[in-house]
Amino acid sequence: MGRPLILVSNDDGIVSRGIRVLIEAMHAIGEVLVVAPDSPQSGMGHAITIGEPLRLIPSNLFDDLGIKAYKCSGTPADCVKLAKHHILKDRNPDLVVSGVNHGSNLAVSVLYSGTMSAAIEGAIEGYPSIGYSLADFDHDADFSHTIEPIQHIAKQVLEKGIGKGVALNVNFPPKQNEKLKGIKICRQAKAHWEEEFDHRKDPYGRPYFWLAGNFVNLDKGEDTDVWAVDHNYVSVVPCQYDLTAYHAIPEINDSWDI
Amino acid sequence: MGRPLILVSNDDGIVSRGIRVLIEAMHAIGEVLVVAPDSPQSGMGHAITIGEPLRLIPSNLFDDLGIKAYKCSGTPADCVKLAKHHILKDRNPDLVVSGVNHGSNLAVSVLYSGTMSAAIEGAIEGYPSIGYSLADFDHDADFSHTIEPIQHIAKQVLEKGIGKGVALNVNFPPKQNEKLKGIKICRQAKAHWEEEFDHRKDPYGRPYFWLAGNFVNLDKGEDTDVWAVDHNYVSVVPCQYDLTAYHAIPEINDSWDI
Repeated sequence: MGRPLILVSNDDGIVSRGIRVLIEAMHAIGEVLVVAPDSPQSGMGHAITIGEPLRLIPSNLFDDLGIKAYKCSGTPADCVKLAKHHILKDRNPDLVVSGVNHGSNLAVSVLYSGTMSAAIEGAIEGYPSIGYSLADFDHDADFSHTIEPIQHIAKQVLEKGIGKGVALNVNFPPKQNEKLKGIKICRQAKAHWEEEFDHRKDPYGRPYFWLAGNFVNLDKGEDTDVWAVDHNYVSVVPCQYDLTAYHAIPEINDSWDI
Repeated sequence: MGRPLILVSNDDGIVSRGIRVLIEAMHAIGEVLVVAPDSPQSGMGHAITIGEPLRLIPSNLFDDLGIKAYKCSGTPADCVKLAKHHILKDRNPDLVVSGVNHGSNLAVSVLYSGTMSAAIEGAIEGYPSIGYSLADFDHDADFSHTIEPIQHIAKQVLEKGIGKGVALNVNFPPKQNEKLKGIKICRQAKAHWEEEFDHRKDPYGRPYFWLAGNFVNLDKGEDTDVWAVDHNYVSVVPCQYDLTAYHAIPEINDSWDI
């Protein structure tokens, strides 16, 4: 193919550090179009905006790279839909990428992740799609070690494709003294958040709650995304949007009175 | 067991018609606790609120039934988390139900569905969980035919359980002249929304977009949720939150250079 067309989105918003890292990495590979939220959308899951109008406004943030960009008032999934149906129309992206998220999207967090919702929306539209996240919530997180593997994974996907209905969830460990050990294709760990709510009073004495919690991994498998990132590998989980638990269909048919 | 404890939530908001239908149906089966959004949350997917505080305020809406209820400023997933971690604490619900959604959640819509996110959040917490939706967007939609199967399915789940990590996505056809044909355990249809955006101008001449679209089903299988509801069956899709596309792991390992 010629230079591939790459759609870039994210959930931290168009002014975040991570999206510039991703845009610069993709700029070396293909023609880039950016459509990203105008404000942070972390934790938005696969939300879409149906009850109110969406704004889509050109952005000059990446003029220095000669890259066309738009900021959108909606969610990451809205951004991908608008890019496809309003901006690109009859052209199809060769690749949809989202991120680099400032913080991990491991294990069940994939469900809450706006980063991955952009990638999964890309897969639903039929495009090879990848969400990238850096497992480092530090404000000054170093993204430099992510660039080469970001490009390597994108090139593999462009050259070899991924199956229909699959989007990749890629997580990078925080930058360490030793080099990354490599890339591992993983399953989603059976880990979850143990939530607590901070119960506080506002200045008027009224109660409010703030979600907090600890990530708990009881899954000791060495084939999981959590294990990989903990051991300084880049984790790649192929994710599908067919949520059917096929194994449960015969179980229910056998046991229920219906 | 004694009277089971049933947590009820939804995404249309605590004042919606559908949640009262579900609460009344569950009231006949067990002890009910309601924690539901204070405003409509349709299309919220599996969003959670992390960047701002949550309010949780007692509601007297179901005092006529002697049922304790709370309205929450957050998403359906937030409601389930707050119910578990702030209200119930050491008590565990025997069942989490969500709905009845005013409109279908078939095929890939499960990803965008706030109704199903409450149910999936329940499954993540380890509870048997069900999301109910009525495939009728009409303002005056008749919910009467849903009550008996809502109760039947809830009782089957309470008596026989469902596998760990599985939540049920139940959809009812619109009320018709003939009786429901029965309950069908299904897979999620490979159908999707073909979006269009209405491109309009606001009173100040600035452009905005409104998401619209048609539901397109190219999946001719008779084992899908779309087929079942189209043929006047109640569809039940067991859904999992492990999104790993296991089949893709060896494919990628075989074809990529890593």
